[in-house]
Order: sequence, then structure tokens, then C-alpha cells
Amino acid sequence: MKNIKLVIEYIGTKYCGFQRQKNGLSIQEVLEEAIKLATGETVVTYPSGRTDAGVHALGQVVNFFTNSSIQADKMPIVINYHLPNDIKVLSSCEVEDNFNARKSAIKKTYIYKIFNCRQLSVFDEGRAIPFGFQLDIDEMKKACNKFIGTHDFSSFVSTGTSTKSTIRTIYNCEINKENNYVYLTITGNGFLYNMVRIIVGTLLDIGIKKTSLEMLDTLLQGNNRKLAGRTVKPDGLYLKEVYY
Amino acid sequence: MKNIKLVIEYIGTKYCGFQRQKNGLSIQEVLEEAIKLATGETVVTYPSGRTDAGVHALGQVVNFFTNSSIQADKMPIVINYHLPNDIKVLSSCEVEDNFNARKSAIKKTYIYKIFNCRQLSVFDEGRAIPFGFQLDIDEMKKACNKFIGTHDFSSFVSTGTSTKSTIRTIYNCEINKENNYVYLTITGNGFLYNMVRIIVGTLLDIGIKKTSLEMLDTLLQGNNRKLAGRTVKPDGLYLKEVYY
Repeated sequence: MKNIKLVIEYIGTKYCGFQRQKNGLSIQEVLEEAIKLATGETVVTYPSGRTDAGVHALGQVVNFFTNSSIQADKMPIVINYHLPNDIKVLSSCEVEDNFNARKSAIKKTYIYKIFNCRQLSVFDEGRAIPFGFQLDIDEMKKACNKFIGTHDFSSFVSTGTSTKSTIRTIYNCEINKENNYVYLTITGNGFLYNMVRIIVGTLLDIGIKKTSLEMLDTLLQGNNRKLAGRTVKPDGLYLKEVYY
Repeated sequence: MKNIKLVIEYIGTKYCGFQRQKNGLSIQEVLEEAIKLATGETVVTYPSGRTDAGVHALGQVVNFFTNSSIQADKMPIVINYHLPNDIKVLSSCEVEDNFNARKSAIKKTYIYKIFNCRQLSVFDEGRAIPFGFQLDIDEMKKACNKFIGTHDFSSFVSTGTSTKSTIRTIYNCEINKENNYVYLTITGNGFLYNMVRIIVGTLLDIGIKKTSLEMLDTLLQGNNRKLAGRTVKPDGLYLKEVYY
């Protein structure tokens, strides 16, 4: 029995998220079906974490156990043959039995893509969000710095979730502007439900002066979900990399 | 009766090309249906030129005649409401009766997008071509310069086409590399059938030293289709702008 680690990318637009669900086609279902066609085995894939409906991945990581004699480094070719155009295995390797894509992860990087114009290009449909108001990028950069460190992120989690701890550590958080695009890149040891999307909503509020840096200090003390920004759409969110 | 000029963008992947066809869904059919739903009128749209199946547009231009009382500048909103996510009207204005999107055009710019890696990202599927071999960009730039000017492009047209003249003038032709992407941008007073795609195939041959700059001089003297490069896929081709 081998433990195989896959790095995969996908366009989340057409799927109900990574996790297998009764009502909708998931990345997991399509991936496991492709692995079955490639290896002849029914496997369960363990992801580094779920991604929601419409969220994309540039480097999602999953692991699965197999008795297949296919060499680990040949897995991308044989699995990709059975995958649709919007899901692709980028690389594969054999890992220790105790490797678990979720539990073994030490940090993750997400990117959020904003098109700072009123109208989205057809080429960005589902892949970015349009935002038509002028943004104070310098103020947003200052706000990003405040997220770095260990905080109680209970202001930045969707209500109704029951998570044991809302304490997370952010190692890096930065805003970059390229032409009309604004990118948030954020790396942390873990993220609460909708946390990145609420951080983006809050940063946009700061960019249009609806929220101040002082208010952000209050939010980072916890338990102020209503004062934080809205949960922006999944369209602009990309799981970029998982670190082990 | 007003003559309306629309600038539209579209992802050509799902369509059989711009022009209405019996066997397949065309951009034209979808666009004219949306105009009908918006204005109540059955119209014919005249494009600056056909684009083939799988070819994209960042700024295709069409015109059509209408008795609709909808203001020209409101057309994008009302038409886009009836268009799918992969076709969008960017702008609209009323033009003189004698304006014809094809006949009035004085030049056009195309872009071709190459991902200089063996494996295409899922996000580039249908939107670029992968090319895994190392490219001599300097040599390709020298080749681009040779295309500029007035030439007999009969080496760069798909066989079987009956075009009166194969003489065209290229005003600008340049290669730019950004990270792993290589872009060709080419502007001319007109383009023969598959001309840009054969030019790209030839430039790639030059980039890998399969074709020399001297051979290109011969090709530009005409009637050597077999010695020119292959017709690359439509995936990387974008009609960027039409000038009037």
C-alpha cells in the first residue's frame, strides 16, 4: 500500500466545491473517478482542506492510498487522461504512510483577484470580482500589515460555524496592483470558514474609507463579525500553495 | 433607421466561429438573438471579419441597422442582459449610414498567446497554446521585423482559398516575453485566411532554428506555403482591435 501525494489545479466555477456532496458535482468525485479509471481502484482522496463552490486551486494537495503498480511520478499522465479540461494533476510523489494532506500541512497561501473596474472582461468571468470604486492601495497595504501575526479571527468567520479555536497566525499578507488588477496574497497556518473572503471584504471597505485602520484594530480583537466587511464572492479566490 | 456600431469581446472556445452556420452555434447567432430580445427586431450584424472556431476577440466590431428607440449608448446594458457569460458588448455608438464594420476598417490588431512550457495550466485551456521547446526570442524579434511592410503573403495563406490579392501591409509585428508567456502582436491593413496562425507557426520554427531568417526572406517573396510553418491552433488567437 503506497501513500500518494498529488498537487492539483482546478477551475472551481462548475463545481460544488472540493468535497463530495449529494447535490452537485464535486472536484473530489471527478478526481476519484479519474483515479479509479487510471488504477482500477476505488480510492478516497484526502485534501489539504475543502474549497468552496466556485473557489479555484493553483496548488491544492491531496493524498490517497493505493496498491496500484503505476509509478508515483507517472500518476499525473494516467490520471489527467481521465480528467476534464478544468482539473489537472500537476505533480505526484510517494510519501510516508503518516502523511496526511490536511494534518501534515503547516501553512497555506491564498490569492484573491480583484478587477478594479466596473465591468469584468469575459475572460475573467468566474475568475475575479469586479470592483468599480477607486481604492486607496496605500491604506490597504497598511491594513494588510495589521493582519500579520497571531490574532483571534472571530470577527472574520462566517456565523454559524462551530470551530474550537478562532486563533490563527498570518505569516504574510500583501496587496499588489498590476494594471487594473489588485491581488491579495495571504499566507497563514490555517484559515477559518470564509476567513479570506471576509478579510478581502474588509480590505475593500478600508480601500474606499468605509472602514478605518483603527476599526480594524478593534476587529482583530475578536467577536465583531458585524463590523467586518462582507463575504466577497468565491470567484476571485485561489488556493495557491500548501506547505509541508 | 439607425446604424449602430458595437465593440464586443468573446471567448471563442464553445463556438463554431463568428459567422452563422448550419452545423454549430456561432457568435453571430447568439448576438443577433440577444439583440432581438433587447430590441424586438430581427437584425443582421456585419462583423469586421469572421473569426474562426476557437478564436477569441477583445475588440471585435460589428454594425447593424435598427429602428429601436433604445439610445445607442444604452445598447450594451440591454444586449448584455441577454448574452451568455462568454460574449459581452463593451461599447456602442451610432455611426453614419455608410459605416460598414468590414469595409470601413483600415487596420486590425491580433494577439497570439503562447505558453512556453510543456504543460498548459487549466486556466489557459483554450486560451493559449503550450510550446515546450526553448525559443530564441531575439531571433524571433528579428523575424518579426521582416514581416513589417508590404509583401505578397501567399506563403502564409491556407491552401484552397480563393483570394483576389495576397498582398497585405503589416504596420507592426512584435514578440514580447512575460514570464513564461510569449505574445505576438501584429497589426496590418488586412489578413488572409489563417495568415496570423501560419505566421506564428513560422515564428516558432525560427525560434527553434528549424527555419532561418534567410528562408523567411524567401517565404516573403510568395508562393511557398509548404516551406512556411504549420497553422497553429486557434486557441491562442485574439482579435484585439479594429481601427477605423
